[in-house]
Amino acid sequence: MTKVAVLGAGSWGTALSIVLADNGHDVRLWTHRKEQADHINSTHKNEQYLEIMIPDSIRAYYELKDALQGVEVILLVVPTKAIREVCQQVNAIISHKPVIIHATKGIEPGSLKRVSQLIDEEMTQVTYEDIVVLSGPSHAEEVAQRQPTTVTVASINENNAKVAQDLFFNEVFRVYTSNDVIGIELGGALKNIIALGAGISDGLGYGDNAKAALITRGLAEITRLGTHLGANPLSFLGLPGVGDLIVTCTSVHSRNWRAGNLLGKGNDLQDVLERMGMVVEGVRTVQAAYQFAKKENIEMPITEGIYEIINSVKKPKDVVEQLMNRDKREEMDDLASLLRNRNTR
Amino acid sequence: MTKVAVLGAGSWGTALSIVLADNGHDVRLWTHRKEQADHINSTHKNEQYLEIMIPDSIRAYYELKDALQGVEVILLVVPTKAIREVCQQVNAIISHKPVIIHATKGIEPGSLKRVSQLIDEEMTQVTYEDIVVLSGPSHAEEVAQRQPTTVTVASINENNAKVAQDLFFNEVFRVYTSNDVIGIELGGALKNIIALGAGISDGLGYGDNAKAALITRGLAEITRLGTHLGANPLSFLGLPGVGDLIVTCTSVHSRNWRAGNLLGKGNDLQDVLERMGMVVEGVRTVQAAYQFAKKENIEMPITEGIYEIINSVKKPKDVVEQLMNRDKREEMDDLASLLRNRNTR
Repeated sequence: MTKVAVLGAGSWGTALSIVLADNGHDVRLWTHRKEQADHINSTHKNEQYLEIMIPDSIRAYYELKDALQGVEVILLVVPTKAIREVCQQVNAIISHKPVIIHATKGIEPGSLKRVSQLIDEEMTQVTYEDIVVLSGPSHAEEVAQRQPTTVTVASINENNAKVAQDLFFNEVFRVYTSNDVIGIELGGALKNIIALGAGISDGLGYGDNAKAALITRGLAEITRLGTHLGANPLSFLGLPGVGDLIVTCTSVHSRNWRAGNLLGKGNDLQDVLERMGMVVEGVRTVQAAYQFAKKENIEMPITEGIYEIINSVKKPKDVVEQLMNRDKREEMDDLASLLRNRNTR
Repeated sequence: MTKVAVLGAGSWGTALSIVLADNGHDVRLWTHRKEQADHINSTHKNEQYLEIMIPDSIRAYYELKDALQGVEVILLVVPTKAIREVCQQVNAIISHKPVIIHATKGIEPGSLKRVSQLIDEEMTQVTYEDIVVLSGPSHAEEVAQRQPTTVTVASINENNAKVAQDLFFNEVFRVYTSNDVIGIELGGALKNIIALGAGISDGLGYGDNAKAALITRGLAEITRLGTHLGANPLSFLGLPGVGDLIVTCTSVHSRNWRAGNLLGKGNDLQDVLERMGMVVEGVRTVQAAYQFAKKENIEMPITEGIYEIINSVKKPKDVVEQLMNRDKREEMDDLASLLRNRNTR
């Protein structure tokens, strides 16, 4: 039995807490809202996020120092924009060196920094080695219902990846390991660009052929950017890459897909964001990826097209036309050269 | 303007004829049924297969020698099991050396031979160099409706791939080239195994997480087999690989998915085939791939599981349980070694 603090009691944090509790661990679920903690402790429900009973063994806390008391592992599941602040708070409390697992998909706008880099910068008690990322194709609702799910955990320290694998692994939650932290983090974040594009294609009324082409070519494109940023291109072909991409692009529950769908139907970005009423990570990611691609001269025609749609520079239909009529070429020239120019493991 | 004989007037042959006619070519659409040819010529419809008007410029033939008169290109779109016979007939008629493009997804049971190998064996007039395969994520209905679609054409002769690219390329039908005939053919055929598996998962009532895992791990598995058979692993990551896999696994129109769905719901194979009332290519492909994998000692746990379900050796639920509880491992070990041990182009 391991003592784990789960920081963030949204749908994903709650679902992962359930996996840990099922595996017999001592789970302390932290939220900064006292009423949410009290509600979870008295009703064993968190119905704002998940429609399922929470095991009695999970205890919710709203005081961070209580939640962190004597824990060996901290699981961070807060939004990207809250990562720095929560890490600073944790850092001020702990005096030991826990393993940090995070399950947050995002990139810091402007800096293009990954979540593990933010943790490393803010927590003086831990080094980059102590950090593990968990990612994969995983709707929280299905995990909470004990539906079969597979994820990957990655750390540059093999032992820490194995610690995370052992914590979560059970008969309905299969966990693979990897050492490519950069690739696993970027796969989860960049796939939201392509989900926006898939929504736009569906919103325009195009069919499955167009969407499959967009997903496939989009995968090549985010692999190109990811590899430039230090990822192993193979990670984009695994569960946190193509697997997560498939789930996000073909599910109407994905908020990035929904935002894209509204854009494809002719709404402008401000309208869409008002109607969504919540953060659409993909929109920020497109802006960041576009600027980076321009600066570094990386070819990303799909990202560029989505950027132009978001900024009302071009109409969705014109962007598709433009993508369909680029130069005739060999399909795999770019991926082949990525893999050829790199030690693939 | 190129004179092209399209052999096979099912939905895919008809849709590709429309693309060629849109591009201004002289299209001769052959069917062995006189009444179908007459119907197409008098009504410009082929509603048994496609709900769309056929351009007046397309002329249907039921006499093969009339269809082949003076053609520079032959497009073969007949079922795998008819390929040898039709090639023998063509061979007896032609005295020149046309370019042969085929758009048939399948493998000959027993021999595990690809369609281009069958053509090469049966047609003494042409060499393997003269053969081009066309494949990609492409529902015929959407192509006929001029919905945006992308495909890949592959030949070991670069010029012939370019001939095919120029014939089909237009503003809604984007064509990439490749030199990996083996990979493009195997991607289209082997993906049907995974589509069966996706249907089984859905039929069992599992969710999107399970299906995404199955598609992702299945992709790694068919890439492993394909590479063993001489394919470039990168081809499985392109349009005729992952692209076609996505379309087939997420569409309820896919007959392989539907057959799998019925199996997952507890029907046995004979029931399923009777209810489908048509050829389910994936079932034959599973049997062939399983036997090959056993003989050559290639690890294919998903294919093996589907084989056991089809042959009533195991129940679908037990197979899933077994797949979820294999040894803990690194995710990308197999793909990495495939790519490392091979010149990637």
